[in-house]
Amino acid sequence: MAIVIALDAMGGDHAPGVVIDGAARALCERSDLRFLLFGDAGRVRPLLERHPVLAAASELRHTDAFVAAETRPSLALRQGRRSSMRLAIDAVKAGEARAAVSAGNTGALMAMGKVVLRTLEGIDRPAIATALPSRREPVVMLDLGANVDCSPQHLFQFAVMGEVYARTVLGVARPRVALLNIGTEEIKGESGVREAARLLRNSPLDIDFRGFVEGDDIPTGKVDVVVTDGFTGNVALKVAEGASRFYAGTLRDAFRSGLRAKLGYLLARPALERVRRRLDPRRYNGAMLLGLSGVVVKSHGGTDAFGFAHAVLSAARIVEQGTNERIIEEMRRVAASIAAPRLRVAAS
Amino acid sequence: MAIVIALDAMGGDHAPGVVIDGAARALCERSDLRFLLFGDAGRVRPLLERHPVLAAASELRHTDAFVAAETRPSLALRQGRRSSMRLAIDAVKAGEARAAVSAGNTGALMAMGKVVLRTLEGIDRPAIATALPSRREPVVMLDLGANVDCSPQHLFQFAVMGEVYARTVLGVARPRVALLNIGTEEIKGESGVREAARLLRNSPLDIDFRGFVEGDDIPTGKVDVVVTDGFTGNVALKVAEGASRFYAGTLRDAFRSGLRAKLGYLLARPALERVRRRLDPRRYNGAMLLGLSGVVVKSHGGTDAFGFAHAVLSAARIVEQGTNERIIEEMRRVAASIAAPRLRVAAS
Repeated sequence: MAIVIALDAMGGDHAPGVVIDGAARALCERSDLRFLLFGDAGRVRPLLERHPVLAAASELRHTDAFVAAETRPSLALRQGRRSSMRLAIDAVKAGEARAAVSAGNTGALMAMGKVVLRTLEGIDRPAIATALPSRREPVVMLDLGANVDCSPQHLFQFAVMGEVYARTVLGVARPRVALLNIGTEEIKGESGVREAARLLRNSPLDIDFRGFVEGDDIPTGKVDVVVTDGFTGNVALKVAEGASRFYAGTLRDAFRSGLRAKLGYLLARPALERVRRRLDPRRYNGAMLLGLSGVVVKSHGGTDAFGFAHAVLSAARIVEQGTNERIIEEMRRVAASIAAPRLRVAAS
Repeated sequence: MAIVIALDAMGGDHAPGVVIDGAARALCERSDLRFLLFGDAGRVRPLLERHPVLAAASELRHTDAFVAAETRPSLALRQGRRSSMRLAIDAVKAGEARAAVSAGNTGALMAMGKVVLRTLEGIDRPAIATALPSRREPVVMLDLGANVDCSPQHLFQFAVMGEVYARTVLGVARPRVALLNIGTEEIKGESGVREAARLLRNSPLDIDFRGFVEGDDIPTGKVDVVVTDGFTGNVALKVAEGASRFYAGTLRDAFRSGLRAKLGYLLARPALERVRRRLDPRRYNGAMLLGLSGVVVKSHGGTDAFGFAHAVLSAARIVEQGTNERIIEEMRRVAASIAAPRLRVAAS
């Protein structure tokens, strides 16, 4: 059965071109995709004409309005009811599409997602999750910026959602989950993080909880899911990106620093290209707004068609794997254990 | 005039060997250093015999006790009164030494520093600061883990201290200071960080405050001082370290992946070695416990003699530059402006 995905054709730095080219690429890989495209028909239609296969698999719905990158989420909510972003989310709410993908303003997307779709049963706040490269398998990290202040209960819910995401979308049989902290000993770190650890240890769920990890454990692949608040997670993500760019830039300078280094680079190039491809941020593009009652994926605003296609394919995989349904199941088990501890004691 | 530095000879993973070899190296670079060594004389004396110049410039004071790496700070405080770490700090308090350097337990060092030395006039809480490599000049970041929860006033004080540190120790004429946040627009981010920005904007000090930076701005050298709370700062530092190691490891694998890559590496090696030297973490070793009423420098626990020497030389530079005295001056100006705003209005 086809999976219908609603696309915000006007979101992102290179919209609508990258959105249309990206959708076409995704369709090459998965012919079972269908698209609902929301955007300026005068700009989108000519692009679709270059992709007849995509055009045949898509329905274009015109709107003049779009959410600009710098618009405040509250303003986007009030004034963006006819925006391409909002209409894509509305299509998920109405059941016309199974997922929405946008490369637009993250804050506006989250705000609209919350208002239109609400959160999943048992989840108080959605979180932004993505997979990051590591020495072993990709690592899921959340929250990456949706929630600046998080209670221990929120962190607990993020852990449950991240675990299900790693299991369903990345196919990790038994994801190892940890909380990001400073110092791996239990005595250290922030009190909210320590309380979240207690909740995870006492949870009725079968989560392979490994306690705390520090920032330098993320790229080692020591655990599969790293849970933190949105402020710390956003800083960590940006620092990792910055450090990688810094390292790459310094290396590039070194390879250009003389004839001998240039020759060395030419010889090593195929091996270095393989590294570049493996770490290519486009391959990790697509952050899930996890915890919304509907699948919403945020593509990086500056990505290209290859990256956007990856975000679309992630959305399809999340739909197919029933990630949200499994999160609901887990949270029901948590709720049941809170409601019925006495009964279980009495029966034992 | 000689600068006397008290050394915790028993702190760190490779103590006392690295401490003694490191002190000897530092003395080679600066013959005006003198050392008070605290530690197990039976282990330290044989090491000193290998360094006659250092032995002549040092006084060894025996103690059996030391603070183990895993000791809780509160326990170290109560039971470590005769420890090598504590005696080194006591020597600063007593005026026998101008600075203390330890590669031991950071939490214990900070706790002892606070109890023995107290904080500088005008400073509520000390912070851990260090210089990090960037594309341009080194960047000062603080707090790196001393304070998990920080008020806007604490962040303001960290900014003042970091600015003075960059000016005096790194020799930046007019350091650009920023707060670490998520999103560079004023509307985003954590409320405490926004309030700290307001305090900095309204400050009577001549600080070149540049607002907010994000995690990926740190290694670009866009600003000279990055201010954050200890939880976020510690995570950011560890993430940057982890990302660099990840990148270096992946690259190493690539260079080993075949004959052609190996040959390329051999040709590029001198250029790559220059990069390695420039980014060598030992060159950035030595975190200042800024805000204590006395100079205390923490060396990385796992460093070698080269790294430890760098920490000792940093301590000497901080003493020489009068960093603490200048911080007091700045905080007095802040206090005066709070006490006397009416007078200034009346006079204008």
